Amino acid sequence: MSELQRIEAGSRMSEAVIHAGKVYTAGIVADAMVGKSVLEQTTEVLQQIDAILAKAGSDKTRIIKANIWLTDIKNFAQMNQAWDVWVVSGKTPARATVEAKLAAAGYDVEIMIEAAI
Amino acid sequence: MSELQRIEAGSRMSEAVIHAGKVYTAGIVADAMVGKSVLEQTTEVLQQIDAILAKAGSDKTRIIKANIWLTDIKNFAQMNQAWDVWVVSGKTPARATVEAKLAAAGYDVEIMIEAAI
Amino acid sequence: MSELQRIEAGSRMSEAVIHAGKVYTAGIVADAMVGKSVLEQTTEVLQQIDAILAKAGSDKTRIIKANIWLTDIKNFAQMNQAWDVWVVSGKTPARATVEAKLAAAGYDVEIMIEAAI
Repeated sequence: MSELQRIEAGSRMSEAVIHAGKVYTAGIVADAMVGKSVLEQTTEVLQQIDAILAKAGSDKTRIIKANIWLTDIKNFAQMNQAWDVWVVSGKTPARATVEAKLAAAGYDVEIMIEAAI
Repeated sequence: MSELQRIEAGSRMSEAVIHAGKVYTAGIVADAMVGKSVLEQTTEVLQQIDAILAKAGSDKTRIIKANIWLTDIKNFAQMNQAWDVWVVSGKTPARATVEAKLAAAGYDVEIMIEAAI
Repeated sequence: MSELQRIEAGSRMSEAVIHAGKVYTAGIVADAMVGKSVLEQTTEVLQQIDAILAKAGSDKTRIIKANIWLTDIKNFAQMNQAWDVWVVSGKTPARATVEAKLAAAGYDVEIMIEAAI
């Protein structure tokens, strides 16, 4: 059986799972979202993703796939403001962004990533 | 070309697809949801996933990634009641849960899984 | 490090990413959706996916997983009209379809695919 490694494995979920040369993150949200703009929340989420990818031996130029959920799709442009300065042009992932209510009120953006190690 | 295997391959979709040491399930919903609580539906969905994983030679301790959709995010706690007793602490997947209307009225929860074999 | 290839890599996202024998598409929407029915939009999305898969050396019989978002789940049957004539019975992917508002008004269907090469 192939090996599975987990980052911050909890009783409900893990922050990330590593398998066969790829790292899969949970849906990441901002830690403290109260009073934070969508831009600020997205920036924080991407910083968290940077940290997870680093722990897994990957980085943002090696993201394969990203799923983004916004509680209000009207914030698409604001989310992209943070995203566009974060990704490296020409080394960008396949991405899909849709609107969805998230697990708790106050969260405006959630991002789930798969990256090559 | 790498080999693809399918479980209950239909004319529209397969219940699961096996490729390169991983099994990918369809979005699984309860079979008979009328009058069933979210807790009951989630328990049934997880039993179905157990059965699919067993057919593929995997099990719930080897899930890499889970996407969960709830028709009403207010049922987050109730879904987790079933989830938390099902997963094995410390061997939990990366997970994202968002709200979305599902394909037919009466379905309250849908879960899509990727697991290592 | 394993190699990553990208199809139409842009500054925000790539149309598809190839890694370790799989191709991952972005969420694909119709190019010009104004006045197009869900059936027409779905047909166009599936044609785009055919083209991406061909560029990657794959085809629709080798799709592992599909995520479909509809802005109105009432269009489930109409989307399936296009889907059912497109997929090859018995060689169908694991699939999940949920309702979600998409990035711009007028888009009624978005499809994200993972396929074996």
